[in-house]
Amino acid sequence: MTINERLSALRERMKQEGIDMYIIFSEDFHGSEYVGGYFGCREFISGFTGSAGTVVVGMDEAGLWTDGRYFLQAASQLEGTGIELFRMGNEGVPAVEEFVRDKLPAGGCLGMDGRTISAALGRKYAKICPCLRTDVDLVGDIWEDRPLLSNKKAWLLSERYTGQTRQSRISDLAAFLRSRGADSMAVSSLDDICWLLNIRGDDVLDNPVVLAYMMVFCHGGVTLYADERKFLQADRAVLDQAGVTIAPYDRFYEDLSKLPDGWTLMLDSRALNYAAVCTLPEGVNVIDETDRIMLSKARKNPVEIENLKKAHLKDGIALTRFMYWLKTNAGKTPMTEISTAQKLESFRRQQEGYIEPSFEPISAYGPHGAIVHYSATEESNARIEPRGLLLMDTGGQYYEGTTDVTRTFVMGPLSRDEKFYFTQVLRGNLNLAAARFLYGCRGSNLDHLAREPLWQLGLDYKHGTGHGVGYLLGVHEKPNAFRWKIDAGNVDASDAVLEEGMVTSDEPGLYLAGRFGIRHENLTVCVKDIKNEYGQFMKFETLTLCPFDLDGVDPGLMTEKERNLLNDYHQRIYETIGPHIPENEREWLKNATRRI
Amino acid sequence: MTINERLSALRERMKQEGIDMYIIFSEDFHGSEYVGGYFGCREFISGFTGSAGTVVVGMDEAGLWTDGRYFLQAASQLEGTGIELFRMGNEGVPAVEEFVRDKLPAGGCLGMDGRTISAALGRKYAKICPCLRTDVDLVGDIWEDRPLLSNKKAWLLSERYTGQTRQSRISDLAAFLRSRGADSMAVSSLDDICWLLNIRGDDVLDNPVVLAYMMVFCHGGVTLYADERKFLQADRAVLDQAGVTIAPYDRFYEDLSKLPDGWTLMLDSRALNYAAVCTLPEGVNVIDETDRIMLSKARKNPVEIENLKKAHLKDGIALTRFMYWLKTNAGKTPMTEISTAQKLESFRRQQEGYIEPSFEPISAYGPHGAIVHYSATEESNARIEPRGLLLMDTGGQYYEGTTDVTRTFVMGPLSRDEKFYFTQVLRGNLNLAAARFLYGCRGSNLDHLAREPLWQLGLDYKHGTGHGVGYLLGVHEKPNAFRWKIDAGNVDASDAVLEEGMVTSDEPGLYLAGRFGIRHENLTVCVKDIKNEYGQFMKFETLTLCPFDLDGVDPGLMTEKERNLLNDYHQRIYETIGPHIPENEREWLKNATRRI
Repeated sequence: MTINERLSALRERMKQEGIDMYIIFSEDFHGSEYVGGYFGCREFISGFTGSAGTVVVGMDEAGLWTDGRYFLQAASQLEGTGIELFRMGNEGVPAVEEFVRDKLPAGGCLGMDGRTISAALGRKYAKICPCLRTDVDLVGDIWEDRPLLSNKKAWLLSERYTGQTRQSRISDLAAFLRSRGADSMAVSSLDDICWLLNIRGDDVLDNPVVLAYMMVFCHGGVTLYADERKFLQADRAVLDQAGVTIAPYDRFYEDLSKLPDGWTLMLDSRALNYAAVCTLPEGVNVIDETDRIMLSKARKNPVEIENLKKAHLKDGIALTRFMYWLKTNAGKTPMTEISTAQKLESFRRQQEGYIEPSFEPISAYGPHGAIVHYSATEESNARIEPRGLLLMDTGGQYYEGTTDVTRTFVMGPLSRDEKFYFTQVLRGNLNLAAARFLYGCRGSNLDHLAREPLWQLGLDYKHGTGHGVGYLLGVHEKPNAFRWKIDAGNVDASDAVLEEGMVTSDEPGLYLAGRFGIRHENLTVCVKDIKNEYGQFMKFETLTLCPFDLDGVDPGLMTEKERNLLNDYHQRIYETIGPHIPENEREWLKNATRRI
Repeated sequence: MTINERLSALRERMKQEGIDMYIIFSEDFHGSEYVGGYFGCREFISGFTGSAGTVVVGMDEAGLWTDGRYFLQAASQLEGTGIELFRMGNEGVPAVEEFVRDKLPAGGCLGMDGRTISAALGRKYAKICPCLRTDVDLVGDIWEDRPLLSNKKAWLLSERYTGQTRQSRISDLAAFLRSRGADSMAVSSLDDICWLLNIRGDDVLDNPVVLAYMMVFCHGGVTLYADERKFLQADRAVLDQAGVTIAPYDRFYEDLSKLPDGWTLMLDSRALNYAAVCTLPEGVNVIDETDRIMLSKARKNPVEIENLKKAHLKDGIALTRFMYWLKTNAGKTPMTEISTAQKLESFRRQQEGYIEPSFEPISAYGPHGAIVHYSATEESNARIEPRGLLLMDTGGQYYEGTTDVTRTFVMGPLSRDEKFYFTQVLRGNLNLAAARFLYGCRGSNLDHLAREPLWQLGLDYKHGTGHGVGYLLGVHEKPNAFRWKIDAGNVDASDAVLEEGMVTSDEPGLYLAGRFGIRHENLTVCVKDIKNEYGQFMKFETLTLCPFDLDGVDPGLMTEKERNLLNDYHQRIYETIGPHIPENEREWLKNATRRI
């Protein structure tokens, strides 16, 4: 079936249901950023494979909304489909809701699968459109070879890695519920569930999560709605001892619908799906509050941080050894985007405790580097020549945590622009990492540090400077971030106060379409600095350990402070990574981390 | 009557009314920052003269809450009163609401004058305390020689200054009300009223406002609740022609109480007072929305900006001539804090179109400079010696707009610390003024630019970096500001997106108690920079024209970029101010603005 045939089939179903316009979101039933195959409706209907996007299908037109990371990719993938690309954030481009309000015929009916949208957003659509059908899955209806729901195994993560028992996490949350007067809390975010229960699984590619819903009761009991066959019998017993009862995945909705009158339910309408909220009986009191588990899990505890440092040491060894191989083989050994990504993966696999990539690796050579979330295919796979820039954004899932790192490697001679911008982007990375700030600051207070060199030149990278990172969970985790745009209605969940233990990426970039792309990404952990009469000062420690390619750096463009920051970082890498690699590589590393 | 006697008398009244705890806010009935004498209840009951503070009086205890600007001043003024100082923002210091919740006896009754608190805050107290009396003014009851309400004259400000007729401003607002489905909008902010109607008055010291309430109807009519004797008959006729009807000041509440069922009233519960909202009949629909007039008046139009530049040229001439006098007379002519402030005022008075100071001038020598809002009295008035730093924060109201400027003058030899910190604070001022940023940024995205040199040293100045400034109105104006702390529930009204035409101060400082204070303040206007594929870039133009005292600058502490910024600014001052001052002063100015 071509995209056009799929659209026709969908419109046929819409007619049968009396639906004039149908929206397909990217999310699964859990608000996940990356989704299992079963939930790929948006990709199925449009052919667009990016991680974020929304498709609206009317009777005569169709559109895809996505953000700056995907403009080039989406334009290319939508070619010939008749689906118009709406570049979110660009001037004059309507939001999805505006488009729906304008284009839906008067009295027309809007349809969507209510499980694939947050309750908060669902309510917005309900306001726009009195005739809103959310009990349908029309793309599912026409998708003949739809993948099944994942039935992968789940497993327990020991306290050695988590630093806190599941009993302790549950009982903290239960105490919180009691303090708020809530009888229970409904949770659908997969990483929340895995974090609270110290379980992991394999139901979403590169995200070791378990497909489940959860209800946590104020007395400390938990119902986990998941396929019980995922768990070993021994593990089920362990969970049972911690007060965790397993119930079938779909019973979540049924149980919600049977909550008694006067029950007080806590939920986060920005996380829980709309169908779940629509299921609640009238008599249930809802406390709609920013997801408490999200706030807790973002603050990595001392055990998690010690583990993260181990994971980053391992990741740094793999990365540095790969860099040695790449730099010394450039122009000698044939290599492509895909082969270099595989080579790096092979170095990671040599590390004990490595599980899998934490996201689909990006290896983008030359002009491909300007496609922010480029993913090499057999067709696009570029041969790497001994010149220009290779942008590699990769990461790993280790028992000791999740890594995410981008290096832009110099494969040979650079143009003056390539070197100039390589250095400017690096200045932003270094200045943000060196921030010292009073407790209470949010990422939006500091984002400018990374962006300033580019903004002074009238340039920008059109994406956030950094995202929170999970612990052996999603590589993109709320609520901390480095972004300058503030979501005024949702500050605490999208731009939280930076707390001790929060892990955030620092990844400015520059993308010149058709020419090249640059990104320099390290992970940072927020730690306490001095405390005095002015308050508690905070700073970042850089977790990632891999040299920035000095062949791309023009020291004359940097301030003395910036050069010192780079030199200190490189010295640390030499001292920590050096002892773990063969001598010839260590010799090379000495030069790769030389003072400039 | 001593403060202790006043407190006793108040507690007597509280007993009579069955009130266990009484709160006295700083505000008048209009949420003004500075208030007329009639509204000085908080100062009357506590003796604290700062512009911001809240007093809570219980039967056995009393407290004053104020912010970092006033810690030293309040501690000194509260001495011996038995009123405890609560330093807002310091660790472990409860908010007023928390204190009330904790200390109010169970079932106890809380009292306040509901006209002196915003509806939003009033509702918070109503939640905390079921027994809330807001129909009392107990301090007024015991205040025998209370000043009368101001009866000063009001006058019309011509289009030459405002750039827009009152008809046009009213009709824009009426169209907005219709677009929102509102029948009318209730307004109590004095500067909103003056801005919309192009009127000015003299009812608050240094703030040329008219004591009034206002109702704006969606068909374009306006009721101005004010003493009609304030206006010349001819001016009343002009207002009448613009659809503005004058009604008695107090009738505002009566009219609100008579709004018919089904009436849709727009108001901003963060601005309108609680008593007004309590007056509304049940059947009135309220649209509670961020004050539209505030948002409009913050964006100065081209005529206002041209006028502002004229005002700042005049102010710059007065300042520069004063600086010449100060620097050439230091150590030769006796001078004090008060005499220097008067001298500067005398230079301002020589400028055509100068009306009055825009706030009570600060002239603070040596250790007094560390008291952020120090105000010299006959008792405290320090003699200025030929050494150390003199901090002067002053401003003027001109027909062409409002100015606000701080210079820290070097009176003779400095300590190494004085020069070091003088330069660090200046770096912050220069870097913020030179920001270039994408449209959509708020002040909180940029505040760090000013604070960074101090935060790197583990220091801070504990106040915002900058505030919005009115046009011949309040010198502190919302919604734009430079602050790093985000009020998550009120972002758009306290930390608005920086729009073309917004005027904001840039005033980092450093205050070392008992030693010295430094502040460098310029006003900036936000303007458009280049627009390209990345978006609309914005930047600031500095309005203030007066040299920073180079005797305090250590160029070795500055980057080359920072030195260039200072040199460029100084060159502009020489070129713009130079032609307007006598030759010997110009010669001096040439040296005072030399390249470093």
